[in-house]
Amino acid sequence: MSLPSRVQIVEVGLRDGLQSESEFVPTETKAAILNELIAAGVRHIEATSFVSPRAVPQMRDAAELLALADKRPGVVLSALAPNPRGVERALASRADEVVVFLSASESHNRKNLNRSVEQSLRDIEDVAALLQEHPMRRKGAIAVAFGCPFEGDVDIASLKTIVAEFARLDFDAVTLGDTTGMATPRLVRKTVDALRAAFPAMDFSLHFHNTRGLGLVNVVEGLHAGITSFESSLGGLGGCPFAPGATGNVCTEDTVNLLHEMDIETGIDLAALIQASRHLEQVMKRRLSGQVMKAGPRLALHDYDGAVAAVG
Amino acid sequence: MSLPSRVQIVEVGLRDGLQSESEFVPTETKAAILNELIAAGVRHIEATSFVSPRAVPQMRDAAELLALADKRPGVVLSALAPNPRGVERALASRADEVVVFLSASESHNRKNLNRSVEQSLRDIEDVAALLQEHPMRRKGAIAVAFGCPFEGDVDIASLKTIVAEFARLDFDAVTLGDTTGMATPRLVRKTVDALRAAFPAMDFSLHFHNTRGLGLVNVVEGLHAGITSFESSLGGLGGCPFAPGATGNVCTEDTVNLLHEMDIETGIDLAALIQASRHLEQVMKRRLSGQVMKAGPRLALHDYDGAVAAVG
Repeated sequence: MSLPSRVQIVEVGLRDGLQSESEFVPTETKAAILNELIAAGVRHIEATSFVSPRAVPQMRDAAELLALADKRPGVVLSALAPNPRGVERALASRADEVVVFLSASESHNRKNLNRSVEQSLRDIEDVAALLQEHPMRRKGAIAVAFGCPFEGDVDIASLKTIVAEFARLDFDAVTLGDTTGMATPRLVRKTVDALRAAFPAMDFSLHFHNTRGLGLVNVVEGLHAGITSFESSLGGLGGCPFAPGATGNVCTEDTVNLLHEMDIETGIDLAALIQASRHLEQVMKRRLSGQVMKAGPRLALHDYDGAVAAVG
Repeated sequence: MSLPSRVQIVEVGLRDGLQSESEFVPTETKAAILNELIAAGVRHIEATSFVSPRAVPQMRDAAELLALADKRPGVVLSALAPNPRGVERALASRADEVVVFLSASESHNRKNLNRSVEQSLRDIEDVAALLQEHPMRRKGAIAVAFGCPFEGDVDIASLKTIVAEFARLDFDAVTLGDTTGMATPRLVRKTVDALRAAFPAMDFSLHFHNTRGLGLVNVVEGLHAGITSFESSLGGLGGCPFAPGATGNVCTEDTVNLLHEMDIETGIDLAALIQASRHLEQVMKRRLSGQVMKAGPRLALHDYDGAVAAVG
């Protein structure tokens, strides 16, 4: 059982985390966090979404935000785009990668995009046609890939149908989203093994939510299954729409801490990442779910005369 | 890599979780939770502590609580006892198992017990002498076994010295406590492998805290290392004394959910356990850190017309 020596973290907090926040975060504040992430060594950041400003007002500053990024060699700025209009806006921006998405289940796709999965696949074909003359990277995101909150288990055959379309349309990568935290280690292994066997040339990424506390367990299982790209959110920003009080996205700095403790490189400075996360917590004016930002790395020692230790 | 087919959960919430709560929980309320745990199929419960009522007022009702337990065949009621006087009280009670403890590091042991590790080992010898004529099970608990918040890394040699004493004194089991969440998968594997090799006849149990989000990751690593007994706390009750807002004990129902999803039996009815955890949350009058009690098991489906699903 061999583990990879290096893993790519894809930071999604500014997009997946912020999108459900009703209070608008000023563009300069978002840019400050974005640039702290870049300075900390994060090299792949899904920073925003070219969606309708009416539908998601929080993302109305997509192009302005990307313009403020402190771009450096090797940094990939990624943006979600739900349709050809969004892709055109992404093409006119400083985005390096466009992410198009759909759900693995009919009911979740209809709820989210008001379309059947087949209609969404045709939309993606239109998007691919638009992207054909542009050197921009393209990634497909599949929501509810490990289970749908309305339908339950998702067939691996449905995932294969969708990935086959992304492959046919020359997508570079596909990310499997565990939108409501229904992934389990066995399911991760079964799904990844089946998809990697069927699409050996495709780059797969995993995007877990911690809704049932299994986010990092599933990351470890993904590592064992040979995956080297994981999406996560600074501070764990982003909730679960179905469970008040439940956590959402897997937390980036908790993931990085785990990877480093497993002797897996990320290229990220954990201390700087924790600082960025604490900054984000100040911006959000509430406690985020990340753990390492509260407890510090494991060898951050405490003063003997500090708090009293509990037994056990 | 084979996993066990069955695991024993040791519930510690009423002891390790409650001990740091300043508001006294009425004995009848504790007993109700205890009996809900038993009804849910939990068969090993560390229910209380025979410590000084002045030092830990929350535990002043230790004997009364055990007297109210709905004992059934196979149920093991366990109680912590820090010294010979505590053990005498435990022997006069309905406890089936007595747990004595010390820390792996000098500074944590001094902080917690005001003794050197060597003095504590001599105390444990006294306790063992007391227990000699009684059929009660005895377990040794080693705090900060995966790292000390004052000293950092803990030598496996120190753990071996302590386990050797427990073995010499006829202890049935030893639990390794990750008191401030410093365990990592590599450290768990290294420690467990070394101790099982040195003490093949000893029953080892693992007690993780989720302080840095790695509790369940470490449980999975413990399973791979051959461990079949894990201590956890209902709802994740019990905090970390060094990190405000950080979680403490690994949550029992989250652990049981994980094990069941890995096809590992616990003998526990997860739905009944979640009910007990929600009851505990009402008693504590605040949100606990457990996730599954908020989100439900993975196939608890949602109404299509319910909350709007988020992308990603």
